[in-house]
Amino acid sequence: MERFDIAVIGTGPAGLEAAITAKVRNKTVLLLGQKTSSDKVSKAHQIQNYLGLPNVTGQDMSKAFLDHAKEMGVEITDDKVNAVYSMGDYFALQCHGGDYEAKSVILAAGMSAMKPFPGEMENLGRGVSYCATCDAALYKGRTATIVAYSPEDEEEAEFLAERAASVTYLPQYDYNGSLGGNITVVPKVKPQSIEMTDGQAVLKTDVDTYSADGIFILRAQVAPSQLVPGLTMDGNHVAVDRNMATNIAGLYACGDITGTPYQYIKAAGEGNVAALSAVSYLAELAKK
Amino acid sequence: MERFDIAVIGTGPAGLEAAITAKVRNKTVLLLGQKTSSDKVSKAHQIQNYLGLPNVTGQDMSKAFLDHAKEMGVEITDDKVNAVYSMGDYFALQCHGGDYEAKSVILAAGMSAMKPFPGEMENLGRGVSYCATCDAALYKGRTATIVAYSPEDEEEAEFLAERAASVTYLPQYDYNGSLGGNITVVPKVKPQSIEMTDGQAVLKTDVDTYSADGIFILRAQVAPSQLVPGLTMDGNHVAVDRNMATNIAGLYACGDITGTPYQYIKAAGEGNVAALSAVSYLAELAKK
Repeated sequence: MERFDIAVIGTGPAGLEAAITAKVRNKTVLLLGQKTSSDKVSKAHQIQNYLGLPNVTGQDMSKAFLDHAKEMGVEITDDKVNAVYSMGDYFALQCHGGDYEAKSVILAAGMSAMKPFPGEMENLGRGVSYCATCDAALYKGRTATIVAYSPEDEEEAEFLAERAASVTYLPQYDYNGSLGGNITVVPKVKPQSIEMTDGQAVLKTDVDTYSADGIFILRAQVAPSQLVPGLTMDGNHVAVDRNMATNIAGLYACGDITGTPYQYIKAAGEGNVAALSAVSYLAELAKK
Repeated sequence: MERFDIAVIGTGPAGLEAAITAKVRNKTVLLLGQKTSSDKVSKAHQIQNYLGLPNVTGQDMSKAFLDHAKEMGVEITDDKVNAVYSMGDYFALQCHGGDYEAKSVILAAGMSAMKPFPGEMENLGRGVSYCATCDAALYKGRTATIVAYSPEDEEEAEFLAERAASVTYLPQYDYNGSLGGNITVVPKVKPQSIEMTDGQAVLKTDVDTYSADGIFILRAQVAPSQLVPGLTMDGNHVAVDRNMATNIAGLYACGDITGTPYQYIKAAGEGNVAALSAVSYLAELAKK
C-alpha cells in the first residue's frame, strides 16, 4: 500500500490550503473530500473579508480555491473517512472506498451542523455504524437499515445488499435512484431516535418504526472524536495548540473543526500552519 | 479627540485583514502603517500558497490586498507609532504625526529583521529615543544625532532642528535630500554601538564617533515590548492565545509578530481572528 506523507481530510479552505502548502513543500498528499470543495463555501451568498478576493460569492470563491488546487497539481480523492487509527509512526485511514496509509494526518473536515440522533452515540459499534462497505462482511444473511444523505450512498447500499438478507434505505435527500431487489426504499421519512431492543436496532421516524440487525448512518462526516479514537476535544471542537497540533503525535487539525470564528480566511490560515507543522513532524520522523 | 473603536498597527496581510473585518462589523478603524502595504509582501518574488491567488508575485498580491481595502473603504494613515499606553478602558497611541485614542488595539506590525544596536535598549528613554517629533520640545538649544531609515525621516529631522541647536543626520538609505542649516548630513556610515558617557549619547560607527545630548533611531518599527509597556513576550514574539489576545485586556496581536510560520495566509487568518476578538471585547466593554 502506498504510504502518503500527509493525508488531509476535508476540502474546504483549511484542507485545500493545507494540501497546497504540503505540495509546495514537496510532500505526497492524499486529499480526501468532495471534489466540489465545501458546500458551506459554495452556498455562501457573499464574502467580504477574504483578503485579496473582494466581494466574492461563495461560488466564485469555491472556484478560485479549486482552480488554485488544480494549478498546483493537488487532486481530490472523493471518499468518506470512517476512522483514523494512529499506528505509532504512521496512520491507517479506513475509508468507504478503501484503506490508506499516511505518516501524518490533517483533520480539516469542518463542523457538521447535524446533531447525532438520540441513542446514536450510545450504540455506536453496537448496532449503529457509519460505513456500510466497511462492515458489509458482518451482515451476511442479516438485515440492515440505512439512513442516507446523498445519491452516492446508493452504491454503498447496493454493496451491502449483496451480502445482507434485506436492506431498508431511508434517503434524506431528493431520491431519484433505481435501487431494487432486496432493498426497500422509503423516502421522505425523518429519523428521530435509535434504540437497541433484544439485539435489534430500532429506528423511530416521524412515520413508522424500522427494526433490523444494524443501522448505518451515512453522514458526510463522522464526529472527530468518533473518527479518531483518543482524540482530545475542547467541547465540540478538536483541541489544538497554536501549531494546530492535537494530543496525538503527527495529527493536526485546522479550520472550523478547531473552533470559532467560522471564517474562511481563518480556516485557510490554520491550514497553512497545520501543513507546515506536519512538514516539521515528518522531518523529525525521518531522523528517528 | 476622536476615539476609534479599533486601532490596527501595521498594513501587511494581518493588519489589512483585521481592518477589513472590523469594517465589515461596522467598527470605526484607525489603520496605521505604510500606504504601500508591507515591503516584505511587495518584494516577494512569487507566492504559491495563498489560497485563491495562485502563483502571484508579491506586487500583484500587494495590489490585490490594497484594492480590497480600498473597496471596503478602509483608509491607511501613514504614521509611525512610538508607544501604546493602556488607560483602562481605552488606549492612547503616541505617533510621530500626533496622538490617537482607541478602545481596542491590534498589533500587526510584523517582525523587523533589524536587531537593536548594542547599548540601545539599555539607554532607551535615557538618551536614546525612537520619535524625534515626540521629544522635540525637550531639545531646545540641545544637540541630537538621528539614525534614519527612510526619506520620510527627513521631515522629522527638520522638525527637531527647529528646536535643537544642531542635528547630525545619519541616513541608512540612499540619501538624495536637501537637509541643511543646522543639520549636518553624514551619509554612508554604519552605526555600531551606543553608550552614555558624561550625559552624552555617544554613537560609534564604522567611520567615526558622534556625541550629542540624545540620539534618535527612526526605525519603521519599534520592538513590541518597547511599544507597549507591560506586554508579555514569548521570546521575540508577542505571546497570544488562540483568540489572538495578549496579556493586556483589549490588546490583540496577529501575523508575524506572534510567531512562525511567517506566511501571508497565516497572517491574514490571524488578522481576522484578532478583529473578531476585538469586536467581542468592544461588546463586553459597552455592557460595563
